[in-house]
Amino acid sequence: MAELRGFMPPRSPEGRASIVPSPPWHYSGEMLTVEYRTDPAGVAELLPHPLEPADEDPGAVAVVFADWQSCSDTFEELLDPVRAQYKEAFVVVRCRYRGELWSRCVYIWVDKDFALARGWHQGYPKKLGSIWLTRPVRYGRAGPRLEPGGRFGATLAEADRRLVDVRFTVTGPSQGGGFVNALPMLHHRYFPSIERDGEPSMNELVTMKGYQVESSTVWGGHAELTFHGSPVAELTRIAPRELLGGYYRSVGMSWDGGTLLDPGR
Amino acid sequence: MAELRGFMPPRSPEGRASIVPSPPWHYSGEMLTVEYRTDPAGVAELLPHPLEPADEDPGAVAVVFADWQSCSDTFEELLDPVRAQYKEAFVVVRCRYRGELWSRCVYIWVDKDFALARGWHQGYPKKLGSIWLTRPVRYGRAGPRLEPGGRFGATLAEADRRLVDVRFTVTGPSQGGGFVNALPMLHHRYFPSIERDGEPSMNELVTMKGYQVESSTVWGGHAELTFHGSPVAELTRIAPRELLGGYYRSVGMSWDGGTLLDPGR
Amino acid sequence: MAELRGFMPPRSPEGRASIVPSPPWHYSGEMLTVEYRTDPAGVAELLPHPLEPADEDPGAVAVVFADWQSCSDTFEELLDPVRAQYKEAFVVVRCRYRGELWSRCVYIWVDKDFALARGWHQGYPKKLGSIWLTRPVRYGRAGPRLEPGGRFGATLAEADRRLVDVRFTVTGPSQGGGFVNALPMLHHRYFPSIERDGEPSMNELVTMKGYQVESSTVWGGHAELTFHGSPVAELTRIAPRELLGGYYRSVGMSWDGGTLLDPGR
Amino acid sequence: MAELRGFMPPRSPEGRASIVPSPPWHYSGEMLTVEYRTDPAGVAELLPHPLEPADEDPGAVAVVFADWQSCSDTFEELLDPVRAQYKEAFVVVRCRYRGELWSRCVYIWVDKDFALARGWHQGYPKKLGSIWLTRPVRYGRAGPRLEPGGRFGATLAEADRRLVDVRFTVTGPSQGGGFVNALPMLHHRYFPSIERDGEPSMNELVTMKGYQVESSTVWGGHAELTFHGSPVAELTRIAPRELLGGYYRSVGMSWDGGTLLDPGR
Repeated sequence: MAELRGFMPPRSPEGRASIVPSPPWHYSGEMLTVEYRTDPAGVAELLPHPLEPADEDPGAVAVVFADWQSCSDTFEELLDPVRAQYKEAFVVVRCRYRGELWSRCVYIWVDKDFALARGWHQGYPKKLGSIWLTRPVRYGRAGPRLEPGGRFGATLAEADRRLVDVRFTVTGPSQGGGFVNALPMLHHRYFPSIERDGEPSMNELVTMKGYQVESSTVWGGHAELTFHGSPVAELTRIAPRELLGGYYRSVGMSWDGGTLLDPGR
Repeated sequence: MAELRGFMPPRSPEGRASIVPSPPWHYSGEMLTVEYRTDPAGVAELLPHPLEPADEDPGAVAVVFADWQSCSDTFEELLDPVRAQYKEAFVVVRCRYRGELWSRCVYIWVDKDFALARGWHQGYPKKLGSIWLTRPVRYGRAGPRLEPGGRFGATLAEADRRLVDVRFTVTGPSQGGGFVNALPMLHHRYFPSIERDGEPSMNELVTMKGYQVESSTVWGGHAELTFHGSPVAELTRIAPRELLGGYYRSVGMSWDGGTLLDPGR
Repeated sequence: MAELRGFMPPRSPEGRASIVPSPPWHYSGEMLTVEYRTDPAGVAELLPHPLEPADEDPGAVAVVFADWQSCSDTFEELLDPVRAQYKEAFVVVRCRYRGELWSRCVYIWVDKDFALARGWHQGYPKKLGSIWLTRPVRYGRAGPRLEPGGRFGATLAEADRRLVDVRFTVTGPSQGGGFVNALPMLHHRYFPSIERDGEPSMNELVTMKGYQVESSTVWGGHAELTFHGSPVAELTRIAPRELLGGYYRSVGMSWDGGTLLDPGR
Repeated sequence: MAELRGFMPPRSPEGRASIVPSPPWHYSGEMLTVEYRTDPAGVAELLPHPLEPADEDPGAVAVVFADWQSCSDTFEELLDPVRAQYKEAFVVVRCRYRGELWSRCVYIWVDKDFALARGWHQGYPKKLGSIWLTRPVRYGRAGPRLEPGGRFGATLAEADRRLVDVRFTVTGPSQGGGFVNALPMLHHRYFPSIERDGEPSMNELVTMKGYQVESSTVWGGHAELTFHGSPVAELTRIAPRELLGGYYRSVGMSWDGGTLLDPGR
């Protein structure tokens, strides 16, 4: 009797064909966070019942660009880095649920399929995009230093249209890395029914957070942020009204599952 | 109260951000099918309980390359073709279930995210790959004619490794387009639990088929097929023992949902 | 004594490593041409001495999108189509030189390196871009028919920015395929000196044209054209003032060298 | 009278359209070098007259993988990093010319068009490829540390075929970064005639070197190297016989032109 192996499809005799290897997953990367305020109505319309806006600063949003390496517990992906490296851009808001405050990713783009599928597993609503993020350097003139005055750019495109432009200038060390993307994540894992007009096959409310989270010193600074229109994005509905600041840091973490809060059926 | 719209994540206020628009979906494309026999044990190990191998020709396999345009009922994607065009390579076997014979896609690669997500909806275990398929032409010398002697190539790569090489030579019109990928599809829609050691959140057995299926004349011919090894593919476990033939045709179809055969819980 | 072989670098012992194989080159493809009038000053500033604007209709411009297969005289690329297929978008104006009227490509983008290098050989000032062009179909609903009412889209992006959007609607068969890109090409082949402030190493004025040119029936129609700004493109300097029409056809041709008109030194 | 501006084609009224901005160019990046010995005949056949093999260690070869940021003197590319970042893999040998010893790049792949064109200017025979190189990290488990035991991978693919696999394990600090790619470069800048059987339009012998070269500590170690066959590469003709070692470092440099040694006509 055949038994298929593998964490996600395609499941196969040896389990090697899965679009993403089995957790735990380990991550090391660079992260640029820009926080801003939008019209709170723009955040509220992204929060399905029974989620509610945060009481304080309900229009706060974070846009995060990250340049990652990730791997499974075999660590073999690190020696075949086409399977380990990817870039990511995402948008996070806060919400209230069961009396607590959570972070919630509402839009996210990555540039590899393993990262896309892994995101869907975690409730991140990933699409593919083209993401670029300036790297700090320590030698030569082709890059900023991580020190006051260092200037960074970050861009996102989807379907050959530029969606986001960020510019960030370091002013100095920062006590923290922002408050919007700092809480446990509250995500829906949603999958429609194969049947027309059927109930969703999956509509779970879940939470998760990484473990063994490490971070470098955080560098804070001034940020500029521009969203551009697209027929397949709705970022301009949460356009910035007031920029709050930016944060650059190196991070590490691991992930090994989350918690089902509401099975949705 | 916010209501999120959109067929799949990311669900959004207007529903335009979804990785794929709502069905029905329409498809028009070119399709090259190569059929061969492998060791029947290689097919059997791809069929999880309660699926069983076909009684006749249990080692038959089809490899299909396709160059598609697809769109939603708005047809707007056809005017922004980066959102309509994609290429695909997939492997199909047959199986028995509830006394009937079905086709089943066991491996499949596409080169766009909307096609990947749509496939996951339909139970196709899609990953991203790089797919190329020679096009027939009617002018100039840079392409085969759809007539005896016309020669085509088709290739698949994943993670910067060539996985499949196909060569096909037209011998003449064919009565049919192959028997392996000709039955209703029997697919699992599988999604693991967010919780470690949890039961899968989705493990449905479904079937589907297109409607308004149209096809050109089918051109049959001789085919050569080579699978190459990869740490993230198991194609060499179903390597060809005997080539049965190849078929080239233009097709059109629409798709608007399937049928849940077994909810798997 | 080593002798290096190959048409262009990298030149190697067997000559197989060259970025593009040796001519003759054969081309078969689909071509959408949009013609319009811009401010004649926008054309004139693209014509270096001693080239002069056309006397009649000096502001006429053609934007062409093409979906190609190409190959060398070995035809082996057609069986490994990743080396044969590419897409292209280019902008053509007319000019006068030595009392004759010529076509001249002023901007052009392709999506493969072999096409880029080949273009530089021919004097086409190619950069890489992402190019998409709707294909006509004969089966299914996911594509226009080549008949009145058929609607096509075409887009160009460079460096993750959309530069050009075209929409084209067939009105009926056309006597010709446009007049701007219809003359022998007059191109500069320009290469700067390795030395700062040195004279260019190559600054030739050349002409060329294909042979064994074949064409399908031409379908004419209405076109819309939009240029978007970019820090690395100057298309908006030749923005459309008046759309003249569009043309869709299948073409074939071969190319085996051109003629040096002025060595430029 | 129109005057076209821009360092390379496409030359345009403002000079912003050029495939690469004007020098000087600044570079900052990470570099992994693997040195090995091949059959000296394999090196000799890559050296056209009047270049000759090195007297000592004539079979020595370096394979270099690099992950770059680069920019012009405006530094604007660093804020739009899709125009600054690229990856590179190249093969270097040594040769004698006019009684001196030189380094010479015989094969090289990059993943951006601006890097390709810039390389052609410098005499690097660039093609496009897909290049991946493990990054060292300081946080988390998804990457090696730059310390003894740290393990890196690097891969190159062209036309959907894997060409090179490298594995590197740090053993400790190294006095130097290798001897093969350490000399002034001796390159041909070669461009064929537009006319069949014409003399090359450019066939210069040039030399160049960077300035303001900076380097981190060099980490040395053990390396493994595998070349795979391809119809469009000849790397297997210089397959490794003996691995000499590997070196990892961060570097910075600038470049502002070279010297014409022999105009070749």
